[in-house]
Amino acid sequence: MEEKSIVLIECTDKKGLVNKVTSVIFGLGLNIVSNNQFVDEESNHFFMRTEIVGKVSKDILVDKIKENLPDDAMIKVIESKPKRIVIMGTKEHHCFSDIIIRSEYKEINADIVGAIGNYDELRGLAEKFDIPYSFITHNEKTKEEHEDEIIKKIEEYNPDYIVLAKYMRILTPKFVEKYEHKIINIHHSFLPAFIGANPYRQAYNRGVKIIGATAHFVTNDLDDGPIIAQEVLKIDHTYSAKEMRNAGRDAERAAFSKALKLVFEDRVFINKNRTVIFE
Amino acid sequence: MEEKSIVLIECTDKKGLVNKVTSVIFGLGLNIVSNNQFVDEESNHFFMRTEIVGKVSKDILVDKIKENLPDDAMIKVIESKPKRIVIMGTKEHHCFSDIIIRSEYKEINADIVGAIGNYDELRGLAEKFDIPYSFITHNEKTKEEHEDEIIKKIEEYNPDYIVLAKYMRILTPKFVEKYEHKIINIHHSFLPAFIGANPYRQAYNRGVKIIGATAHFVTNDLDDGPIIAQEVLKIDHTYSAKEMRNAGRDAERAAFSKALKLVFEDRVFINKNRTVIFE
Amino acid sequence: MEEKSIVLIECTDKKGLVNKVTSVIFGLGLNIVSNNQFVDEESNHFFMRTEIVGKVSKDILVDKIKENLPDDAMIKVIESKPKRIVIMGTKEHHCFSDIIIRSEYKEINADIVGAIGNYDELRGLAEKFDIPYSFITHNEKTKEEHEDEIIKKIEEYNPDYIVLAKYMRILTPKFVEKYEHKIINIHHSFLPAFIGANPYRQAYNRGVKIIGATAHFVTNDLDDGPIIAQEVLKIDHTYSAKEMRNAGRDAERAAFSKALKLVFEDRVFINKNRTVIFE
Amino acid sequence: MEEKSIVLIECTDKKGLVNKVTSVIFGLGLNIVSNNQFVDEESNHFFMRTEIVGKVSKDILVDKIKENLPDDAMIKVIESKPKRIVIMGTKEHHCFSDIIIRSEYKEINADIVGAIGNYDELRGLAEKFDIPYSFITHNEKTKEEHEDEIIKKIEEYNPDYIVLAKYMRILTPKFVEKYEHKIINIHHSFLPAFIGANPYRQAYNRGVKIIGATAHFVTNDLDDGPIIAQEVLKIDHTYSAKEMRNAGRDAERAAFSKALKLVFEDRVFINKNRTVIFE
Repeated sequence: MEEKSIVLIECTDKKGLVNKVTSVIFGLGLNIVSNNQFVDEESNHFFMRTEIVGKVSKDILVDKIKENLPDDAMIKVIESKPKRIVIMGTKEHHCFSDIIIRSEYKEINADIVGAIGNYDELRGLAEKFDIPYSFITHNEKTKEEHEDEIIKKIEEYNPDYIVLAKYMRILTPKFVEKYEHKIINIHHSFLPAFIGANPYRQAYNRGVKIIGATAHFVTNDLDDGPIIAQEVLKIDHTYSAKEMRNAGRDAERAAFSKALKLVFEDRVFINKNRTVIFE
Repeated sequence: MEEKSIVLIECTDKKGLVNKVTSVIFGLGLNIVSNNQFVDEESNHFFMRTEIVGKVSKDILVDKIKENLPDDAMIKVIESKPKRIVIMGTKEHHCFSDIIIRSEYKEINADIVGAIGNYDELRGLAEKFDIPYSFITHNEKTKEEHEDEIIKKIEEYNPDYIVLAKYMRILTPKFVEKYEHKIINIHHSFLPAFIGANPYRQAYNRGVKIIGATAHFVTNDLDDGPIIAQEVLKIDHTYSAKEMRNAGRDAERAAFSKALKLVFEDRVFINKNRTVIFE
Repeated sequence: MEEKSIVLIECTDKKGLVNKVTSVIFGLGLNIVSNNQFVDEESNHFFMRTEIVGKVSKDILVDKIKENLPDDAMIKVIESKPKRIVIMGTKEHHCFSDIIIRSEYKEINADIVGAIGNYDELRGLAEKFDIPYSFITHNEKTKEEHEDEIIKKIEEYNPDYIVLAKYMRILTPKFVEKYEHKIINIHHSFLPAFIGANPYRQAYNRGVKIIGATAHFVTNDLDDGPIIAQEVLKIDHTYSAKEMRNAGRDAERAAFSKALKLVFEDRVFINKNRTVIFE
Repeated sequence: MEEKSIVLIECTDKKGLVNKVTSVIFGLGLNIVSNNQFVDEESNHFFMRTEIVGKVSKDILVDKIKENLPDDAMIKVIESKPKRIVIMGTKEHHCFSDIIIRSEYKEINADIVGAIGNYDELRGLAEKFDIPYSFITHNEKTKEEHEDEIIKKIEEYNPDYIVLAKYMRILTPKFVEKYEHKIINIHHSFLPAFIGANPYRQAYNRGVKIIGATAHFVTNDLDDGPIIAQEVLKIDHTYSAKEMRNAGRDAERAAFSKALKLVFEDRVFINKNRTVIFE
């Protein structure tokens, strides 16, 4: 290990944890580039993210840190190379294209290894950027059959994350559990307002003055997974539901790309139904 | 009528309404200072707000406009003098003091003719600014008895609007109906997220990344009246529910003062459960 | 003329202009879809934008309106078809790609008829979307020779607008005058702060807490043309100048795409060094 | 020392500083409540803010830390009691009243020990809250005579900070140097745009689409001191310079109160012409 690495730690909180971890790191002759920690006082849980530079065996580093931490400690040492991701879409282009562009120009730390759509609309866009596109229709299939085909394709890519870029079908518990904490979705409302279908129509009917978008990890509670990023924009009475949807696209792009940037730089811990994010 | 007046019109939409109304106004030798209109296409309903200057009888103006509009037209001509308002509070000072300051220095078009609290905490603040303060406890009273006392006091003031500046009790339908479209509330969440009690605790538990505040007219559906203004602010995982509440105060002040400014300048139409606002 | 058209009017202000224009439009049996007007009180100048639907000769409409307006009136009737635009870039991809995507998916009312770069870096991106790309180096040429080549190429396309998507060379007065009010630029600062080169470095040195981007029409006063749209984002002391530049990309994209959307829908009037925008 | 204290450290950066400081703190049996550090890589300068709880002599703590740090280290240990502040105003009430309310209700960590105005307009407001108000006119005095009177009055209060709540006179170098790093001002523009007089008029003339406010420490370069907080708001072509000024008040209040909150909680380091802020 010579390059920059990221050390992620979480465990029950105790006095002096930061001091102990940094002592181990310096003891091994490593440099700390940046360092963040947070204690969730309600659950007494400690989170730490440290960027280090230097030469050391990953196993030795993990073991030495483990010796100094409570028994429940989870420690990861991650090399900062691009994540392998699969993007899934339906027909809307705006988040799909935004990720492709940001991946192409290294604005997010990810390589798109494959794209999957339940329609064929987005093929042209993916293929322009040499991303293999699989059109897997849901027509004349049970939900399970459809997902089994998708899973089979995903497994070929062995991705670190699955990114739902306006993929408009609800995933089954089986799918979600298979990729626990690895699926990121963009929901077109300021959650928890307007859960479920057609949030812009709901927002129109309620007469809100601000609309938003929410990027979150997917769990089996619909639209209720840990939130990573949210963006909003002001609207007024002149917006129809359709105009809200058009305007909302930019909030969706913004929340989604921000969330992906953070996750792919290993800045996001999941803390039960919440996230801890070291920007 | 010599000063600036505001003409508010709403009716079923028809071709050429603006042209007809402006023809009447010019025909009477009046000047148009500003002019806004909006058609709600879903309900085919027309809204118009016009600021005029000139000498004319209010009745003549209303009659002449009425002749040119559909039968269901509602027309108001309002002189732009300060509204008479009663403010109600409980213990929290921040919206209460903000309105007092803004009224004192004419930042909102309102005179505070009285203040009512179900605790005595805010008396000192009100009295510093020579606002009569009535402490009407809810202790050892039924909800109806309590409200009857409040209504009796309000009636002494004959206000145009009742402003709930963090008044922390739910009003009965009787009270709400008595002052239909005249009660303005500030709710400490980004509605419709986190309806009901303790929204900051709810927001903490959900792990949102943005919190907000909503100023709205009060109806008998809790926290569901027409929204006038909303404000938000970004937070992160380091905020406890209490810190959210503290930070949220500024969003509450901002949404509330913006809403009051708009309403008291007669810029807000109620359009069923939504608002039409000409800023 | 059968489709939707846009009528743009500006002239010295006089009482009753809106009434007169709408009378003409209704007299010709046309429908008004939306209508906006503004009077610049400092210069006593009137601006009006009206969307109409109906069958009429463009010349007759202009003539009839002209009869009813002051002598200095400028009247345009525009069909709402996509603008022909040429985009110019240097090496940075983010605004360049953003416009291409938005044009491709009709988020802005424009067809990109050609792209020009003073480097060859952006060719691949343009050609993926079948946009002809001309690499016109400035090397070993005088500024005038370089621009003459560019102008020759632009003339082949006969564009409505020239869009500088992070084109990093200052244009000569000759060029700017040739395309007066037709060149739109994105400047990577919150103008008028940080005019000129390297604004993020300037912002870093000044220690600002907010950075921004400005989309504006190009005039011969460097970075001083009429502003169309501005966007900002909050930063803190941890941002290096380079990190500001990276973060600022999203503000640049947002301001630029917003400005282009407005201009290409004929919502923007130039009012000396300012803009009047009917959103 | 038993209560919560704040340790502020700055020095040349070296490897392992955080580890050394935390070792000292734990060695003395103290608890760390929160901990922030930052390295300015351009100047190789280290900043650290630590909140601690526990019983220790302040001198011993400073000495022990000093032993472990580079020779140029500056170390402060501060008890978290309210700052003593003097507020200065001219005629405008909005920032002046905002601070008074926030101090009165402990929203900022400060006691206002006195108020000084070069007009008598704000006396009533101050005295409502039992703040002694000194009207010191500048009429028929040289700038130096005027400031000498002010300084004499300030010295009676021995304040930690002097807060310029829209005090509309430029201070002399003598005054500024006397209270170096202790004077906080609110400037009614998004600095460095629109330095000097009448920034809203300048903003109007330039046709900006966003206006702002800047809270900063006062130095001898006009409007060029280290920035603490900035706030902005969107405007459009319909705003006159006067309407910008009115709307801008809320941005001024927001930037100013945010800055004062941060400074009075000892969260702000001055780093040459920039600030390092641990929120």
